[in-house]
Amino acid sequence: MLRTHSCGDLRPEHIGKTVTLSGWVQKARNKGFIVWVDLRDRYGITQLVFDEERSPKEVFEKAQSLGREFVIQVRGEVIERESKNPQMPTGAVEILVQELNLLNASETPPFTIEDESDGGEELRMQYRYLDLRRNPMREKLIHRHRVAIQVRNYLSDLDFIEVETPYLIKSTPEGARDFVVPSRMNSGQFYALPQSPQTFKQLLMVGGMDRYFQIVKCFRDEDLRADRQPEFTQIDCEMAFVDQEDILQTFEGLTKHLIEKTTGTTVDDFPRMTYAEAMKTYGNDKPDIRFGMTFGEINDLAQNKGFQVFDQQELVVGIAVPGGASYSRKEIDGWIDWVKRPQVGAKGMVWVKCLEDGTYKSSVDKFFESSDLEQWAKRMNAQAGDALFILGGPAHETRTQLSALRMELGNRLGLRKADEFAPLWVVDFPLLEWDEESQRYHAMHHPFTAPKPEHLEMLKDQPGEVCANAYDLVLNGNEIGGGSIRIHDADLQSQMFDLLGFSKEEAQAQFGFLMGAFQYGAPPHGGIAFGLDRLVAILGGDESIRDYIAFPKNNSGRDVMIDAPAPLDQEQLNELYLNIQTED
Amino acid sequence: MLRTHSCGDLRPEHIGKTVTLSGWVQKARNKGFIVWVDLRDRYGITQLVFDEERSPKEVFEKAQSLGREFVIQVRGEVIERESKNPQMPTGAVEILVQELNLLNASETPPFTIEDESDGGEELRMQYRYLDLRRNPMREKLIHRHRVAIQVRNYLSDLDFIEVETPYLIKSTPEGARDFVVPSRMNSGQFYALPQSPQTFKQLLMVGGMDRYFQIVKCFRDEDLRADRQPEFTQIDCEMAFVDQEDILQTFEGLTKHLIEKTTGTTVDDFPRMTYAEAMKTYGNDKPDIRFGMTFGEINDLAQNKGFQVFDQQELVVGIAVPGGASYSRKEIDGWIDWVKRPQVGAKGMVWVKCLEDGTYKSSVDKFFESSDLEQWAKRMNAQAGDALFILGGPAHETRTQLSALRMELGNRLGLRKADEFAPLWVVDFPLLEWDEESQRYHAMHHPFTAPKPEHLEMLKDQPGEVCANAYDLVLNGNEIGGGSIRIHDADLQSQMFDLLGFSKEEAQAQFGFLMGAFQYGAPPHGGIAFGLDRLVAILGGDESIRDYIAFPKNNSGRDVMIDAPAPLDQEQLNELYLNIQTED
Repeated sequence: MLRTHSCGDLRPEHIGKTVTLSGWVQKARNKGFIVWVDLRDRYGITQLVFDEERSPKEVFEKAQSLGREFVIQVRGEVIERESKNPQMPTGAVEILVQELNLLNASETPPFTIEDESDGGEELRMQYRYLDLRRNPMREKLIHRHRVAIQVRNYLSDLDFIEVETPYLIKSTPEGARDFVVPSRMNSGQFYALPQSPQTFKQLLMVGGMDRYFQIVKCFRDEDLRADRQPEFTQIDCEMAFVDQEDILQTFEGLTKHLIEKTTGTTVDDFPRMTYAEAMKTYGNDKPDIRFGMTFGEINDLAQNKGFQVFDQQELVVGIAVPGGASYSRKEIDGWIDWVKRPQVGAKGMVWVKCLEDGTYKSSVDKFFESSDLEQWAKRMNAQAGDALFILGGPAHETRTQLSALRMELGNRLGLRKADEFAPLWVVDFPLLEWDEESQRYHAMHHPFTAPKPEHLEMLKDQPGEVCANAYDLVLNGNEIGGGSIRIHDADLQSQMFDLLGFSKEEAQAQFGFLMGAFQYGAPPHGGIAFGLDRLVAILGGDESIRDYIAFPKNNSGRDVMIDAPAPLDQEQLNELYLNIQTED
Repeated sequence: MLRTHSCGDLRPEHIGKTVTLSGWVQKARNKGFIVWVDLRDRYGITQLVFDEERSPKEVFEKAQSLGREFVIQVRGEVIERESKNPQMPTGAVEILVQELNLLNASETPPFTIEDESDGGEELRMQYRYLDLRRNPMREKLIHRHRVAIQVRNYLSDLDFIEVETPYLIKSTPEGARDFVVPSRMNSGQFYALPQSPQTFKQLLMVGGMDRYFQIVKCFRDEDLRADRQPEFTQIDCEMAFVDQEDILQTFEGLTKHLIEKTTGTTVDDFPRMTYAEAMKTYGNDKPDIRFGMTFGEINDLAQNKGFQVFDQQELVVGIAVPGGASYSRKEIDGWIDWVKRPQVGAKGMVWVKCLEDGTYKSSVDKFFESSDLEQWAKRMNAQAGDALFILGGPAHETRTQLSALRMELGNRLGLRKADEFAPLWVVDFPLLEWDEESQRYHAMHHPFTAPKPEHLEMLKDQPGEVCANAYDLVLNGNEIGGGSIRIHDADLQSQMFDLLGFSKEEAQAQFGFLMGAFQYGAPPHGGIAFGLDRLVAILGGDESIRDYIAFPKNNSGRDVMIDAPAPLDQEQLNELYLNIQTED
């Protein structure tokens, strides 16, 4: 090693020892007769002293020219520091340097390598290797590693086997777009990169593997929204001979373990909520239950009282905003504008202030009695001093709008605390959702999800009413995992494909191998997949995933550091039997 | 769970308990008044008894129709078995079945699900999910999981951080062919799948990650040889502030740990051999040192004695074959034919029998004295009773031929024992190798490998003589790992690209980001990558990797189970701006 200790190692007990350190120059302060250098590596920072009197002349002279991010190796004695820095683990000592070896010089970096950098996002992406030198970035990657190894050891101890499934598989037009890979050896044919190892993990269950997991890259060629990556990582899991309860128990255990090990927080048993309840109470199938502001529906209280705006709506629903009674007219108008933004899409908002003296003031005072407003307040669990924010409209849209408002209020009121962890299970998802555009049902989870056995009879006549043995694990308002009990019966799977509008031929061409496998003794099975990027971000106290990925793509799917994707030589295209379409 | 115990759990202490088991019918024996069923799951086999007198009538009747690979759930009492089977962990007990629940029927599988199956390779690939039900297959995947988790915990305990590097990167024409991925969002442009995370791990070192590893899929679009896969798994590692010795020590530790933990064998410190020595002594840079038969060069002893076939050769070299003196003429002719096969390519072979009485008999008795042959025998460390097999020709080719012969003899003589582990380091590889076809130097390891500092001066005038700080880890005649100390100096890297025939523009276009990173304080660093597929196979006592991969491709790069690759719809091609070239 080009060092005897790391830059985070040295303590008072090392005083008097001669040590060798290597690292980067964090900063150098030249006082003329003395040069102090903060030497940095992954493990910490140690102060070096080059002293006109006590360091060799040529060493002292060389030290004058050290710039930021130079890589050096030094040898010297650990001495006690005069002005100790109790903030730094190594702050009681410094190294009186006797030998200095310049390992590599550095140009001035394009942004400061400090906890708070002065570099913009695009610049930091381009020089990602410099950005990773900053403590917060490095800590996030180390945190990610720790989460992953916790997952592996926890599941392995429960007899789960990590099995690598293939990356070069077959394209299926169902769902999101696949990334494809032309085959040189099979001209005109393509592999696809997996959107998930779904069918392979089911085949592993058919193959008797009993308990499988894999931390695995998956790929989706979707138009990127902010914070979506074309490649992302899943913790993919499957178990045989289980029912839904077994899966919930097993992965609640894993999630508790991860929260406790990585954050030090203990959590109780996870609450469970049906999809219907989550939608009704939070307007959202991934509710953030760290804070209240649950929905109060007031159709019965607010309709047919002369306020026509409400009368014609499918749903009138509101929330109580803590402390909202003190909002100025301008602040309330700000919130009305906020819900009317096209991204939210509400037509308007009714407000009621629940004043401390027990009276009410509202935008609809003309139409409602104080006693009406009091009942609304009760329905929304409002306290004196709160405001009620109320929307009306078609049920699903209005819930979505009010949910967006609730989340934004939660953010601004500081109710979404990064160090608080509120997981829950959302269960009993509908099996199918109707798609207006294609005029057919789509699988809400995926086409392999099993209907609840007690709903099987409705599959023919009321498919939209059928619930699935499907579940999501929600943490702090984010879906961190989702899964289902799978169909293991070839006939039922075939019936599902019918319902989803697959012809027999399409089903056979795309999933024939799975249907074939079901002929040979498929066991009951089910599973779950976690989004690792999101999970580590939330456990790290963040919601944005990008900093938890070593080399992310930007919103156009480009890696700006290596400048990919890029054109190919025609020679390479010829080998693949491909031409680029030219635009007319 | 659809079971209270697994099929491997039950022991005499469970007698009297009522249990529920689930699994597959391994076999059913119907004696008329009694039906025995062997029930199998991942964990073992348990015998079930359905008895005309002691089981409920409808259960007994249902049991009559159970076929191989049916999936069932049973409930019953654990009873003592009359004729115990000491070979089976559960062989002291059986279950007297009271309830039988058919979970899924099965068609008759296309081959037997036994340790020794009657299915051919192609059929077993097509029904991989059934093949995986066989114990030896399942055990190999479990073994693979165990190796991987040992690797992760061992390296993690040494402060290595597993960092996921991207799969959608940039194509580089250097080396093997890349698999490419057309980008829909960037028309006419392509990502490439990584052949290795080489440049990213170096950037992580520049980024201060200090110790990195990753178990990661890599991709190479090469014409497949037997036992090569287009996607394969590496244990990829890199360390900063190290020299070669640190890497050898660290990964010798890992390899020892893996051998000991997975095989129970202890191994001594790994011998080290230079590339030159390995080639001279074994004709091979990945020698199998589980057995001797080292090369004896006899140019000085065999040339200019009147045997012209030898006189004109660059190299005359042989090995002693244990017990070979007793080979019949026919057997020897068989070996002569073997070395003359086009795959080996020798022109002929000279043999000498070292008889027990101290005399010699050879194919060249006419030309050489007995005393000559005695000296040859000594050079090849032959014992009385051995035969000498001798080849002559151009040095490199002849060594390769003799190495092939030595390995084949090792196999046939049973000297390559699967339960014996003989690792070694091969070091001091040449930096470059001359390519006749392109009339230029190629990097022997890769273009980022550092020359030995003491050879730096030769780089200009005698580049072919320069040795690299490159090393391979060899186990039982297979390269299981290889790596090098990297160049961390932008000027030296630029000089290397010159030597390898890159123009400045090409170097900039392909590796500009790496050269750029080297401007900002790159630390000295180096690493190694292990081939996980091969490593787990060898630790499992096999040389073929295919059974250690859950869903492998065949030799045409096809997955015959899912039938991939496959054609795409024109609509999908249009989205990617691609046309398939039509043949004229």
